[in-house]
Amino acid sequence: MDIIHSVPELRERLRREPDNVFVPTMGNLHEGHIALMHLAKPRAACTVVSIFVNRLQFGPRDDFDRYPRTLQSDCEKLRAAGVDVVFVPDEKAIYPEPQTFIVEPSDLQNILEGAHRPGHFRGVATVVLKLFNLVMPHSAIFGKKDYQQYLVLRDMVHQFALPIEIIPADTVPAGRNGARRRGSTGYCRKSVPNWRQAPMTISAWNCTACRYWRTTAGNPTTWRCAAAPTCGRRSTARKSSWCSPPPVWAGRG
Amino acid sequence: MDIIHSVPELRERLRREPDNVFVPTMGNLHEGHIALMHLAKPRAACTVVSIFVNRLQFGPRDDFDRYPRTLQSDCEKLRAAGVDVVFVPDEKAIYPEPQTFIVEPSDLQNILEGAHRPGHFRGVATVVLKLFNLVMPHSAIFGKKDYQQYLVLRDMVHQFALPIEIIPADTVPAGRNGARRRGSTGYCRKSVPNWRQAPMTISAWNCTACRYWRTTAGNPTTWRCAAAPTCGRRSTARKSSWCSPPPVWAGRG
Repeated sequence: MDIIHSVPELRERLRREPDNVFVPTMGNLHEGHIALMHLAKPRAACTVVSIFVNRLQFGPRDDFDRYPRTLQSDCEKLRAAGVDVVFVPDEKAIYPEPQTFIVEPSDLQNILEGAHRPGHFRGVATVVLKLFNLVMPHSAIFGKKDYQQYLVLRDMVHQFALPIEIIPADTVPAGRNGARRRGSTGYCRKSVPNWRQAPMTISAWNCTACRYWRTTAGNPTTWRCAAAPTCGRRSTARKSSWCSPPPVWAGRG
Repeated sequence: MDIIHSVPELRERLRREPDNVFVPTMGNLHEGHIALMHLAKPRAACTVVSIFVNRLQFGPRDDFDRYPRTLQSDCEKLRAAGVDVVFVPDEKAIYPEPQTFIVEPSDLQNILEGAHRPGHFRGVATVVLKLFNLVMPHSAIFGKKDYQQYLVLRDMVHQFALPIEIIPADTVPAGRNGARRRGSTGYCRKSVPNWRQAPMTISAWNCTACRYWRTTAGNPTTWRCAAAPTCGRRSTARKSSWCSPPPVWAGRG
């Protein structure tokens, strides 16, 4: 397993191995992450994992400095899982200068977890786009445990016409009641409510003019068109002809 | 010369020819554009040109519908110039749904031409990122005649770590006094002042903490740090230790 820290070294390594599948992480790996690696392995000749704690997705209430860095044990787990390349850039490698170009995601970034963490998904989308451009995988794997993140990145790839297949993984990271794993070295984002535990259903509606999203709490028959400011259509809608039947995804992780 | 309209056909064509150089255009080609093709030709086995009038970069005061579409004569000129692939997508191919993910460029988007056309460079950057992801060239050529656009796209490639070399072309499109070519079928963006003809000098300063830009009108010794809101440094600066000597580019196209 190659542990690579610099961008030129990564590009050189992957130039020899363009058939690769990618799993971006922030480290502090547990068995949920490792399940993603097992899902990745058979999909390409080369499995690439990144470990990068991305300052851009941390808000002022999140504690970037306290996020656990456990590189040695992470690498042991990745080696045991048969990962081929681990990319561990420092901040200067990813942000050699302040990031002034930003990916501005759809309105999906502003609800649920995003409503409590302004700019979070902007930071996620921006760093993942950069990592995609460095690794250039044909596939990338994201856990459905972070469902909203998966949706944002899936849509980004589609909207920016990236030639990458986004594979959602059903695997739920370990921990009681599906909650994030916490331990003596673990990191608990106290400021963020665990929306998966809320009595809430997320319905994803496909509109013929736009795609929009609405949380409903026990009242699935009324909703608001979240994308209306963008698409210019009415801001409040009831089910009508311009909405196709909704594929509903029920929350609770 | 292959004239391609659909995304799958383009991907299939370029899968056979990954060594390509790219020149994106909005069509209505004149000798200035053709000079870009001649610059491109020796750089790769395959020269790819796109013709796409990008609604996203037109503001409410710009007349998208009146922008001239001259596909037949454009293709004749491109064929004569030895171009290999012309990609002519319709709007549905580039925007199969409303574009809800946007590239938000640096503050450079807000000065000069950008100050008169809010959102213009956002639209340019977003469509060029998509076209890059479709064509996947190793190099792309942009005329320095549209100097601010060239800078925005050069910086986007750098900031998003795209594996693409941006090549600036000195060629000035034909027309008296360096102005845009206009004719009976031509398009003149009347609402946009031709800033290249203004008595103005653009100075590009490299700051060790950020890059910032300032227009000066006869007074090059004072300026404001345009990136200060981003980098958190003082909003007004005089030349100091955290500014390296500026590479000055004098305007007037």
